[in-house]
Amino acid sequence: MVEAHDAVDVIRAKRDGGEVPEEALRWMVDAYTRGYVMDAQMSAFAMAVLLNGMTRGEIRVMTDAMIASGERMSFAGLGKPTVDKHSTGGVGDKITLPLAPLVAAFGVAVPQLSGRGLGHTGGTLDKLESIQGWTAALSNDELFEQLREVGAVICAAGSGLAPADKKLYALRDVTGTVEAIPLIASSIMSKKIAEGTDSLVLDVKFGSGAFMRDVEKARELARTMVELGTDSGVATTALLTDMNTPLGLAIGNANEVRESVEVLDGGGPADVVELTVALAREMLALAGQPDADVEGALRDGRAMDVWREMIRAQDGDPDAALPEPHETHTVTADADGYLTRLDALPFGIAAWRLGAGRARAEDPVMHAAGIDLHAKPGDRITAGQPLFTLLGHDATRFERALSALDGAWEIGAEAPPATPLVLERITD
Amino acid sequence: MVEAHDAVDVIRAKRDGGEVPEEALRWMVDAYTRGYVMDAQMSAFAMAVLLNGMTRGEIRVMTDAMIASGERMSFAGLGKPTVDKHSTGGVGDKITLPLAPLVAAFGVAVPQLSGRGLGHTGGTLDKLESIQGWTAALSNDELFEQLREVGAVICAAGSGLAPADKKLYALRDVTGTVEAIPLIASSIMSKKIAEGTDSLVLDVKFGSGAFMRDVEKARELARTMVELGTDSGVATTALLTDMNTPLGLAIGNANEVRESVEVLDGGGPADVVELTVALAREMLALAGQPDADVEGALRDGRAMDVWREMIRAQDGDPDAALPEPHETHTVTADADGYLTRLDALPFGIAAWRLGAGRARAEDPVMHAAGIDLHAKPGDRITAGQPLFTLLGHDATRFERALSALDGAWEIGAEAPPATPLVLERITD
Repeated sequence: MVEAHDAVDVIRAKRDGGEVPEEALRWMVDAYTRGYVMDAQMSAFAMAVLLNGMTRGEIRVMTDAMIASGERMSFAGLGKPTVDKHSTGGVGDKITLPLAPLVAAFGVAVPQLSGRGLGHTGGTLDKLESIQGWTAALSNDELFEQLREVGAVICAAGSGLAPADKKLYALRDVTGTVEAIPLIASSIMSKKIAEGTDSLVLDVKFGSGAFMRDVEKARELARTMVELGTDSGVATTALLTDMNTPLGLAIGNANEVRESVEVLDGGGPADVVELTVALAREMLALAGQPDADVEGALRDGRAMDVWREMIRAQDGDPDAALPEPHETHTVTADADGYLTRLDALPFGIAAWRLGAGRARAEDPVMHAAGIDLHAKPGDRITAGQPLFTLLGHDATRFERALSALDGAWEIGAEAPPATPLVLERITD
Repeated sequence: MVEAHDAVDVIRAKRDGGEVPEEALRWMVDAYTRGYVMDAQMSAFAMAVLLNGMTRGEIRVMTDAMIASGERMSFAGLGKPTVDKHSTGGVGDKITLPLAPLVAAFGVAVPQLSGRGLGHTGGTLDKLESIQGWTAALSNDELFEQLREVGAVICAAGSGLAPADKKLYALRDVTGTVEAIPLIASSIMSKKIAEGTDSLVLDVKFGSGAFMRDVEKARELARTMVELGTDSGVATTALLTDMNTPLGLAIGNANEVRESVEVLDGGGPADVVELTVALAREMLALAGQPDADVEGALRDGRAMDVWREMIRAQDGDPDAALPEPHETHTVTADADGYLTRLDALPFGIAAWRLGAGRARAEDPVMHAAGIDLHAKPGDRITAGQPLFTLLGHDATRFERALSALDGAWEIGAEAPPATPLVLERITD
């Protein structure tokens, strides 16, 4: 137990642009978690952090204090390196599904403790629950055993990791302080570090469908998290990736599983393959295999074998048919030309309105709901050809979904300039 | 009732440096007062205001919303102009006591709704309660009647004025957001404007014994309040005055009453007379009497007559003996020279420790406790001469008071440079 400090002194130090002493900052997080520091004090502190920033040292201490609020896992007895991936979230981002078995195919343990979707970005667990029988809940022993046997695990994060983060995040959500980069970084990284992984690759997204629209802010977040991982003893690399356009051709749950299986089968949309391979290379490099033949493992079925084992280990049937929508509605092109823009945010919102996502944490999702795209920016378009198809069980939702899509894509005479999917690689 | 807004949107607007729309800001204050906006949201907003400021328009709307949270008084039926004074507080600041009857001697109504002291600055009501029988509590009818008959009233502010301010001030106190100038200005001015005075003179103090140590900050606060008064239809002027040294020779309660009566009797310390006269001139100018013979009214007993009437109207006996301390302790000079410094803050703290002030709002004060000064900076000093005397009922308190005074004064070979008591006059 750290010595008591005065919350007002801590707030004032940050407010006046100073650095909060290590012991005082640890006390603040601990006392907040225990209820001795009031919500009103922590939110004033969070606002001061948002406007005045935090030093690299403060962010490390803050994160460490959040980790100390809960349990800390360890994969030390596993006998193989562990490497984890975290994405800041986007539209059509199913990369975890093919990536975890792909990397595990090289003998590396991949513990992907994941969440559910809220709002316009989907959740990895929601997608996998499209698979008949599959269960997200594993005990720590089951997780450890599956990492040893299969190598890849995608499961629900226990509530014991960094409980301070849960309390602080809920507060930030209602006080306009979500956007503080030091707090975003410590929120994400406290859970990842508490998880006990040896190394971590971050997919930090920018653009309309990302949490950080602005590339500068995304870069700052990526740098902050890479520094924080390094300072906390977790080898960390980040890729800064474009989320102005949905990833792949499927937005939803069951259709994203289908697309992931295509990638594991050596096919799939080029952008999904590119990002899966880029992240797998980073993860394997951190695990000591910089020259692994990643594409080979997709081509020759090694990754698919791990996928099937991973699904089966969590009671899922990899061969079961995926749920299908009862209703569909296809939108076609009204002109010839090139698809110049297809905006991630409105497509994410439309899929969410169709039932693929949830508005409240306790709502269920409709696994068959979502959107299948038939074209991506840069594709040549002929008038009348299908552009995308809305999927759902309830045709009355189509109108609200379509209203979100007003102005969400554009057909022009010229092909749009090509933009890189992976903009930068960030290391400490 | 204003339309509902989203507290997070209001916080974000201020956080991002924007101007909060008038209706949204009104809603925020109203909803906070009613409990629909949480403390945690208001404190995040207050921190954003502290760091990003508020426009003149926002400050006016914020103040107006705080006024609208409670009752609003009016002196319209009084048949004479009303003018009020507010001081931001200092050590030995008893100016209200001679000032209110002095100005009222010119046929102007002076409604001084005052508070009690907390911490190192004394409270006007505490000082007057040294007078046998005197009562601070008046009904609105009694206040109105006394203004009509006597002209001067010093009484307790009712709790019905700007209740939003009371709630917000308590929150700011525990969240490191007291120092936000727009919020200080709206806190002070909401009560003064709700009180219904025609005009207002502000005594904004800077220096060690003042709430604002820094002259720049004090000037900014003075300007903000003058603009706010003007925008709200109250003619407002401010004097920026030096509070590095205690005002006068008495710090406490009964001794400050005694010193005030000396001023009303045509005597008293030069600095107390100077500031009383300067503020009276400003008040009378706003009431349409720029050429009033203020010093004359002190010399010829007109101000004293109003004082005696004012005290009697509130059941006080102006001729009763004031309480005397049971114990005293005099500190003498250890060298010849000039008194070069006598620091207001430590003397305020020492008087407070002697029992002249209170630590908690519900504590009583000891009216006879305090400090009598025998010299002021600039005075020529001979070794062994008395510098000041501690007054109290309990000699055990002297040690703690003296420890606050360690290094609080200085004797040097040269006379210190003279500094003006009134630094600037600020009008819109």
